Amino acid sequence: MKDEPLTTVVGVIGGGQLARMMVPPAINLGLDIRVLAENEGSSAQIAASQVGDYTDVETVLAFAADCDVITFDHEHVPAHVLAELIKRGYSVQPGPHALEFAQDKLRMRQRLGDLGIPVPGWTQASTTEHVTGFLAEWGGRAVAKTARGGYDGKGVRVITSAAEVADWLELLQPGESLLLEEFVEFRRELSQLIARRPSGEMALWPVVESIQADGVCSEVIAPAPHSQGKIADMAGSIATQIAAELDVTGVMAVELFETTDDRILVNELAMRPHNSGHWTQDGSTTSQFEQHLRAVLDLPLGATGLTAPFTVMVNILGGPASGDMLSPFPHAMAEHPTVKIHTYGKEPRPGRKVGHVNASGDDLPEVAYQARGAAGFFQV
Amino acid sequence: MKDEPLTTVVGVIGGGQLARMMVPPAINLGLDIRVLAENEGSSAQIAASQVGDYTDVETVLAFAADCDVITFDHEHVPAHVLAELIKRGYSVQPGPHALEFAQDKLRMRQRLGDLGIPVPGWTQASTTEHVTGFLAEWGGRAVAKTARGGYDGKGVRVITSAAEVADWLELLQPGESLLLEEFVEFRRELSQLIARRPSGEMALWPVVESIQADGVCSEVIAPAPHSQGKIADMAGSIATQIAAELDVTGVMAVELFETTDDRILVNELAMRPHNSGHWTQDGSTTSQFEQHLRAVLDLPLGATGLTAPFTVMVNILGGPASGDMLSPFPHAMAEHPTVKIHTYGKEPRPGRKVGHVNASGDDLPEVAYQARGAAGFFQV
Repeated sequence: MKDEPLTTVVGVIGGGQLARMMVPPAINLGLDIRVLAENEGSSAQIAASQVGDYTDVETVLAFAADCDVITFDHEHVPAHVLAELIKRGYSVQPGPHALEFAQDKLRMRQRLGDLGIPVPGWTQASTTEHVTGFLAEWGGRAVAKTARGGYDGKGVRVITSAAEVADWLELLQPGESLLLEEFVEFRRELSQLIARRPSGEMALWPVVESIQADGVCSEVIAPAPHSQGKIADMAGSIATQIAAELDVTGVMAVELFETTDDRILVNELAMRPHNSGHWTQDGSTTSQFEQHLRAVLDLPLGATGLTAPFTVMVNILGGPASGDMLSPFPHAMAEHPTVKIHTYGKEPRPGRKVGHVNASGDDLPEVAYQARGAAGFFQV
Repeated sequence: MKDEPLTTVVGVIGGGQLARMMVPPAINLGLDIRVLAENEGSSAQIAASQVGDYTDVETVLAFAADCDVITFDHEHVPAHVLAELIKRGYSVQPGPHALEFAQDKLRMRQRLGDLGIPVPGWTQASTTEHVTGFLAEWGGRAVAKTARGGYDGKGVRVITSAAEVADWLELLQPGESLLLEEFVEFRRELSQLIARRPSGEMALWPVVESIQADGVCSEVIAPAPHSQGKIADMAGSIATQIAAELDVTGVMAVELFETTDDRILVNELAMRPHNSGHWTQDGSTTSQFEQHLRAVLDLPLGATGLTAPFTVMVNILGGPASGDMLSPFPHAMAEHPTVKIHTYGKEPRPGRKVGHVNASGDDLPEVAYQARGAAGFFQV
């Protein structure tokens, strides 16, 4: 008795926790979601229809064959692989023409500058002289970033001399440069999540505050306290302009600095669901993962209102010393019955993102207490 | 690079939509959920680690081998199969000593009566004379039910003469009987959902109103209007007593009649997540599916508070004429952006439960309008 209904197949390249977290809304809606994972036992294993190398054209084409749309868990699929998918007529969302600005921070800075969007002072540097010159111009301190491949604080250094990026300069290929940025004096970091579908409809969630530790997101407060009005308007308008001008599809996170002199500057872009949007799973009518699926399929977007006045997300970094992510469940659940626990099926390892918790409610201090308390049970 | 973390394995016997809907919370928590499905292409296919016959002891034992706990999508696993699992030391939740009362309506009526729980007038009948006698006693009209195997109005008939159950009487094996019940004049049907873990902790959701059409649930209103106080207290106390006395584990739904003379009578029991609890997916801090997983693993239960004052669930029965469950998405989503759509990966067929929608909000008429409107797009 084979009983295979007509349905829509969403193919996700990359088997990390972002792909994993697309699976529940796909099941709820009734979509067939399939993942091209890097290895066996990936976080998104339950939907991993294939294991293979996403930099290999033949592997990706074989995976794409049955898919109605191709989307991503990460931004690292090479341009020539994306080009081949487009050439064969696949729907790739977001498309390579948008994705290149998430893949290359220099191109992103250039393009956002051209659009008149506020960004930190920056330059590209391929020599010691470039670095020294920029440092002299910006008070002796700068942020250096590799143009490609960085994430969670990797590929980012605060420097006061060219010697601190000598290794990176040495590794540059001809035509490549580092990105040097003004060291921004910021009051806090914000993140503006937006979704856009190919036909143009967009939906914004409220702007959130994102708290980092050692370059990794540790906590998100939704909405960002005291952000209603001018700050929310600026953040929303920046994200809307970027999404429209760059023809972004799916979910995009725009990471922002709120400076001590009341400016909003764009820090980074991520063209996929993002850690700063995990709170939406339990705090918004439509989660970023459901919205991403709707958007890449060019379906009408869901409502992005809050289901509670405040939601706080706390990342679980590292995980329990026992190595068993579930060992803290009895105590964490007993102490914090309102908190939603998310773990990623990843082996605990120092500093690794292995899960998060969300707490929601009317009273921000109480909500933060619940989320931090529950997450605390999972930390080494 | 094999990366297989320690985790807990939940085995679900039965591959229907209830098993399917346990998968998203299992993924969120980080549990490994595996399903023994009846056939290929089941609703719970994404987690179907095995396809086989749940009435076959060897099949079930092979499935159970890697599982930390065995639970169910339905109540039809034979007693001798359950007994073998217990004998081999498996954790079976709910256990056979509880499940028998959900499997056999006569045993359920007998036991609830012994406990002093209010039930409709009833008798067991294996002959025409029994039926005729009961009809005479109860005003010439009764409800006849087969003791086993009924669901969604199947195995239930309203009768005024013994001739109307002649076929059922003829099929009875020695020792078997039909259940005959008083035809209850009810104001409305209610459902009280409860979860209980082996160590005894229980959690109640608010009592809901369940609206039936042709013996099938068509709509649920949570909480039941005007139920606070006496009605909620009676419903909660009945469910608590049944769960404790019968040693129920996991989620149980107690279907109730609210009679025109203000009594609350038990109609049916279901020892598993239940259609009358689908609203909890989008209307309660903890869904019945997450709670069932927590309960069968003897983990602390989650909070059962409402995330909005009202949630209305409307079943999608039959599905679209096109045969494509997703074809109504563009219109339904555009018209009803706040509604949560759930489809089960089942082929549309007249009267079949193929999905449901949930809508939540402050204003019951508006919430009901949204839910009915969205569901309407999916009906033939």
